[in-house]
Amino acid sequence: MKKVQRLFEIDPWKIRTTKLDKENRRLQESLTSIGNGYMGMRGNFEESYSGDHHQGTYLAGIWYPDKTRVGWWKNGYPEYFGKVINALDFIQMKLFVNGHEIDLTTTQFEDFDLELNMENGVLTRSFVAIVGATKVRFTFERFLSIVKQELAVIKLTAESLSGEAELKVVSKLDNNVQNEDSNYEEMFWLEKGRGHQEESSFLTAQTIPNNFGIEQFSVTGAMKHIGPSIGLQQDDNLEVSETFTYDLKPQQSIQLEKRVVVLTSRDIPESEQGKKAIALLTEYNDSFEELLAEQNAAWANRWALADVLIGGDDEAQQGIRFNIFQLFSTYYGEDERLNIGPKGFTGEKYGGATYWDTEAYAVPMYLGISDPGITKNLLKYRHNQLPQAQHNARQQGLNGALYPMVTFTGVECHNEWEITFEEIHRNGAIAYAIYNYTTYTGDDSYIQNEGLEVLTEIARFWADRVHYSKRQQKYMIHGVTGPNEYENNINNNWYTNYLAAWVLSYTLESYQKHQNQTSVSISSKEQEKWQDIVEHMYFPADEELGIFVQHDTFLDKELMSANDLSPEDRPLNQNWSWDKILRSCFIKQADVLQGIYFFGDHFTKEEKRKNFEFYEPMTVHESSLSPSIHAILAAELGLIDKSMEMYQRTARLDLDNYNNDTDDGLHITSMTGSWLTIVQGFAQMKTTGGNLSFAPLLPKEWNQYSFHINYRGRLIFVSVNKEEVKIDLKDGSALAMMLYGKEISLEDSLTVPLEQEEANV
Amino acid sequence: MKKVQRLFEIDPWKIRTTKLDKENRRLQESLTSIGNGYMGMRGNFEESYSGDHHQGTYLAGIWYPDKTRVGWWKNGYPEYFGKVINALDFIQMKLFVNGHEIDLTTTQFEDFDLELNMENGVLTRSFVAIVGATKVRFTFERFLSIVKQELAVIKLTAESLSGEAELKVVSKLDNNVQNEDSNYEEMFWLEKGRGHQEESSFLTAQTIPNNFGIEQFSVTGAMKHIGPSIGLQQDDNLEVSETFTYDLKPQQSIQLEKRVVVLTSRDIPESEQGKKAIALLTEYNDSFEELLAEQNAAWANRWALADVLIGGDDEAQQGIRFNIFQLFSTYYGEDERLNIGPKGFTGEKYGGATYWDTEAYAVPMYLGISDPGITKNLLKYRHNQLPQAQHNARQQGLNGALYPMVTFTGVECHNEWEITFEEIHRNGAIAYAIYNYTTYTGDDSYIQNEGLEVLTEIARFWADRVHYSKRQQKYMIHGVTGPNEYENNINNNWYTNYLAAWVLSYTLESYQKHQNQTSVSISSKEQEKWQDIVEHMYFPADEELGIFVQHDTFLDKELMSANDLSPEDRPLNQNWSWDKILRSCFIKQADVLQGIYFFGDHFTKEEKRKNFEFYEPMTVHESSLSPSIHAILAAELGLIDKSMEMYQRTARLDLDNYNNDTDDGLHITSMTGSWLTIVQGFAQMKTTGGNLSFAPLLPKEWNQYSFHINYRGRLIFVSVNKEEVKIDLKDGSALAMMLYGKEISLEDSLTVPLEQEEANV
Repeated sequence: MKKVQRLFEIDPWKIRTTKLDKENRRLQESLTSIGNGYMGMRGNFEESYSGDHHQGTYLAGIWYPDKTRVGWWKNGYPEYFGKVINALDFIQMKLFVNGHEIDLTTTQFEDFDLELNMENGVLTRSFVAIVGATKVRFTFERFLSIVKQELAVIKLTAESLSGEAELKVVSKLDNNVQNEDSNYEEMFWLEKGRGHQEESSFLTAQTIPNNFGIEQFSVTGAMKHIGPSIGLQQDDNLEVSETFTYDLKPQQSIQLEKRVVVLTSRDIPESEQGKKAIALLTEYNDSFEELLAEQNAAWANRWALADVLIGGDDEAQQGIRFNIFQLFSTYYGEDERLNIGPKGFTGEKYGGATYWDTEAYAVPMYLGISDPGITKNLLKYRHNQLPQAQHNARQQGLNGALYPMVTFTGVECHNEWEITFEEIHRNGAIAYAIYNYTTYTGDDSYIQNEGLEVLTEIARFWADRVHYSKRQQKYMIHGVTGPNEYENNINNNWYTNYLAAWVLSYTLESYQKHQNQTSVSISSKEQEKWQDIVEHMYFPADEELGIFVQHDTFLDKELMSANDLSPEDRPLNQNWSWDKILRSCFIKQADVLQGIYFFGDHFTKEEKRKNFEFYEPMTVHESSLSPSIHAILAAELGLIDKSMEMYQRTARLDLDNYNNDTDDGLHITSMTGSWLTIVQGFAQMKTTGGNLSFAPLLPKEWNQYSFHINYRGRLIFVSVNKEEVKIDLKDGSALAMMLYGKEISLEDSLTVPLEQEEANV
Repeated sequence: MKKVQRLFEIDPWKIRTTKLDKENRRLQESLTSIGNGYMGMRGNFEESYSGDHHQGTYLAGIWYPDKTRVGWWKNGYPEYFGKVINALDFIQMKLFVNGHEIDLTTTQFEDFDLELNMENGVLTRSFVAIVGATKVRFTFERFLSIVKQELAVIKLTAESLSGEAELKVVSKLDNNVQNEDSNYEEMFWLEKGRGHQEESSFLTAQTIPNNFGIEQFSVTGAMKHIGPSIGLQQDDNLEVSETFTYDLKPQQSIQLEKRVVVLTSRDIPESEQGKKAIALLTEYNDSFEELLAEQNAAWANRWALADVLIGGDDEAQQGIRFNIFQLFSTYYGEDERLNIGPKGFTGEKYGGATYWDTEAYAVPMYLGISDPGITKNLLKYRHNQLPQAQHNARQQGLNGALYPMVTFTGVECHNEWEITFEEIHRNGAIAYAIYNYTTYTGDDSYIQNEGLEVLTEIARFWADRVHYSKRQQKYMIHGVTGPNEYENNINNNWYTNYLAAWVLSYTLESYQKHQNQTSVSISSKEQEKWQDIVEHMYFPADEELGIFVQHDTFLDKELMSANDLSPEDRPLNQNWSWDKILRSCFIKQADVLQGIYFFGDHFTKEEKRKNFEFYEPMTVHESSLSPSIHAILAAELGLIDKSMEMYQRTARLDLDNYNNDTDDGLHITSMTGSWLTIVQGFAQMKTTGGNLSFAPLLPKEWNQYSFHINYRGRLIFVSVNKEEVKIDLKDGSALAMMLYGKEISLEDSLTVPLEQEEANV
């Protein structure tokens, strides 16, 4: 079994610890990240901390094209790897007591407390610093407003517990920050301006020039302090600071509130930023308590719709809330120019802003818990990038459009051939999201307009990317990497082939249906060619085993179970050579099962069972995207214990550091996994073909669970306990739907007994 | 057909042009490189040249471990990529006429002449510089002594043709040099000392420190000038210079000779280098003419044994001489710590000092034209690196020894997983060279001692690297790259599987034969396991086509002929995306044919023919190693025109820039290809099983060819013309051998009619 690493207490709403874990400070930082969709940061300390940690503040849509770094250039490689860049460190408040700088690496301290409140996104930390005979309790409260997105608030409280304390606070806006993952150890920022005005200071910086025609972004931070002392303003390159001093008698305390406004050239021209930022600081003149109250109310609104209540299992409850909290902190759909980055505002690894994760894992949840317009924005984002996707296909010498693996602009910016050039199944997920949106919402307006343009170009890519094998009299797709990235350059990945054929078929069908509404034109010759590919695509399968085969030679491998692995081998990607991983049968995420999940209505239960039983035991789930899909299928097959195991893994992936890499940042795009497991797994919600259905079951560890669903203009509340399933129509008109395979009409509220069928394993 | 680019005139002994080709200066530089096994340089100009070019001087065994640069780290990657480093530029002699610096990029000039004499390795260049009304003819003669390896000699002659010339010559030792291929644009050199003594100056530099435990190398250059003026000595960081001034009246001329001695810490401790270098400059006090005479004599000795005479085809003659000249300039076996680097002293690309090219392509020629001790040194070099090869195997989690793809120390230092981790066939070539040496020389001393140790560890690697496929009831090798590097991560590459099984079999056989002489111990259980693998190895084959199949799914590809490609597609690696290359049927070098070449006595002529006819048309020969093997097989099959086409391609690969990459440097390790083609191809020399045989044929374009062979203590001279084949035993005892399939006894000289059989194509 996989070992887990748990740094924080179990609590349904809090992420809390009383231990400063210096060995795992990076992991603590990742898990206490906060964000408001516009900006965010790791759970760094305000005061200096010289121990191992990763200082990181990130701003949505602010990035830099870092010149590609590869060992050996191959034609087709992107020129740059786009990176979310570490931006203005605006939380900095250095602390000095009697001339000694507080640094928890070296300063003696006691009574440490660190708490992230997921109900309102407030991060609170306190400790008592001991400097000689003087003890001072410091408390920081910090939040990023989800009501006023440019605003960050930090409140420092210092209380002398014993001894006299000469306290100095140096509060900064510091843009001397670098990316840990910079390819050539470059500094990405240039100072452009700074200024002071009464009690405010501002600093403007710009990203350095680049050779790739990518805009340079400007960022201005402005700060203002509220407290019993006037700051002494000072400047240095790429930083401004204000220094406050206090003489604290024993038992005396002071409060100093720091307010920061951050503006970027995505919204405000550089020349206006300083003035505007200071104006906003003046405008946002509510008290701390007032700002906090509106923050609480705004989060309460989010939770009212999105919260999933789990009875009897606080670990599970904490996990899903952490997931939803971090996902919403990254993206709540306010800005259609943005997408959902793999690390959100919690780290630098992976680069890029947009992965296929959005279409495959985020869209299904956003469809369920938010306005359809938000999902439509995510789809439009890809339509806007169609020209760049065409460019990507040309880079490979191919027709049509190839959506990128990693991107900011739509142009591919990842630099491993086995991913960039080969992991082309992503193109299918873009098409699948169009199908998913259309089926779920019943709204044809997207497919009739933008959708068919996207689908047609993706279909053209596939039609060019297949080749005809004379020997097998079939169309094939050679040289791909499937979602199982533990195989590279394989032939006839079942998932990719299936998805490619489906895209061609769905595009033909949609074109024929909407031909009179669309501007797209597909010649009859092209349609015939596509139809021929659909009819003669090769799908590897093994009749004896009754399974679809992952790729051509998979069954020649030495087939083993992941249970045969010893704990010190896990995760494989940190302990085995790449050679050994590639040759082994072990699967990062089972892509045959991913395909069966996508197209659940194409396969019989028996097919699903046989494939699940064959592939899951070989799957090590080292992709954060893996467990949820397996949990959903396991639930459908009545393998409830397996489904719970997978639920734990997806819900607590970061909280329990399953993949031993959360120190790099959170796995934001897989945060939907726990919600999907409960809704599509335990509750068996299906929407394929435009019909809503449920068939809930309840894990034995839980007393109950409940959630809301937006569906075609209705708000539906589902609650499941050990006896019964209750479905409430909270808003909208009556709806014909299926429950446990029976047609029902949902008009107000209905209750049926829980029908639980556990499979024999 | 492939277009060629030819910058130099056809001449049997000269590489000559009267055109300074500024567009292709790098290519000119590569082709006029000189070396003496100890040091070498590209055909750079002594005076300044500001146009596009690549200044490069390289010293054997002087390298730097450059921190690995990859986009995405994978377990098992080497920490550094070892690079031959650009070293002390000691040819520099800046020229100024009436205050104007001569630079052929901008200075007006006429009567340019550039000539490399392959008979003695002297590079001569002259031109007339026009500065206002003054015309001065400058002539440089340069050679690196192959008698006194530390010595370089440059003679400048300046003659005023019209006008008065105030001439200034600034002669330098300049270590301000950088590698163009440095991963992080680092400077690899630090100054360690300098000094002047009467007419001599010296400069000592050391490679910068590294984090990988690799020694820092020190290099000292010392220079002394002979001429009618005393130099003014000057210093700067990492350089020393001497300035000479002359007033030239019309028709007056001067000569200035620059002598340089270069020492390295490989031979002389840093602290003694300066003194020793100046002492050698004093000791080497022969005149230019005397030094040149000994150079001529030494090269004449080399040519007497190695020259291949071709009658009636100066292109072919020039090609093979260029190959032999450049090969000997890189390696003549004097220093057993060295090996044969892929670019020799002619460029930086590829890094490393040692590739499998040595065993597969160089050993067969060195066996034929040099003392067996030289080949034995090449073999011992690998034995010395056995511990490092074991380390490499451990890095991949495997038993035994894995010889590196690219190395200086034996530790792998290449950084692409598809090469480093997967191109493991190289391990078989190391074993094959032991077989080749033993069979050719009849000397068992190497295999009984070092050889079996190497073989056993290689065999252990293979025994661990195979896996057993239950489905196919066969041993398989998944996840490899064959010599055809236009496929990556393939399964059951026929060549690799064949070689692996052969290694196991040959090791078992050799162990059983030499068990009483060797210290190696192989348990009977291990022997049984190996035998089982030998007997149950999987070899992909297609009965209908009568061919061995390159790898598992090769026949599913869209099979085309290279003739269907348009010229602008070639070379594919410069014009196609990597994705397109991988998926196409086109082959960089046909590895099935490489295997058939290695094991020529294992296959019938019909098998050879069918495989050749299947694979050669799909082969684009974009590996410099490819054409020779194909030429040899084509000759054996009587496809003499095809063989000649391939001969041209291997012999003139660089002279005609077939692969459009000779600007980066020459393809040193494939320089043996033309010799192999003539000896093993046209003359059909075979030595397998310890029997020497010939079956010569003559290409119709040629009148005759002849060459010498060292074989088991004998010197044999073979000459072939349109009528007859003559074989002379020039030295050694009588020998039983085969000629045209008949047993003969070679006692003195014998002549038989030419038996030419051309295949129907």
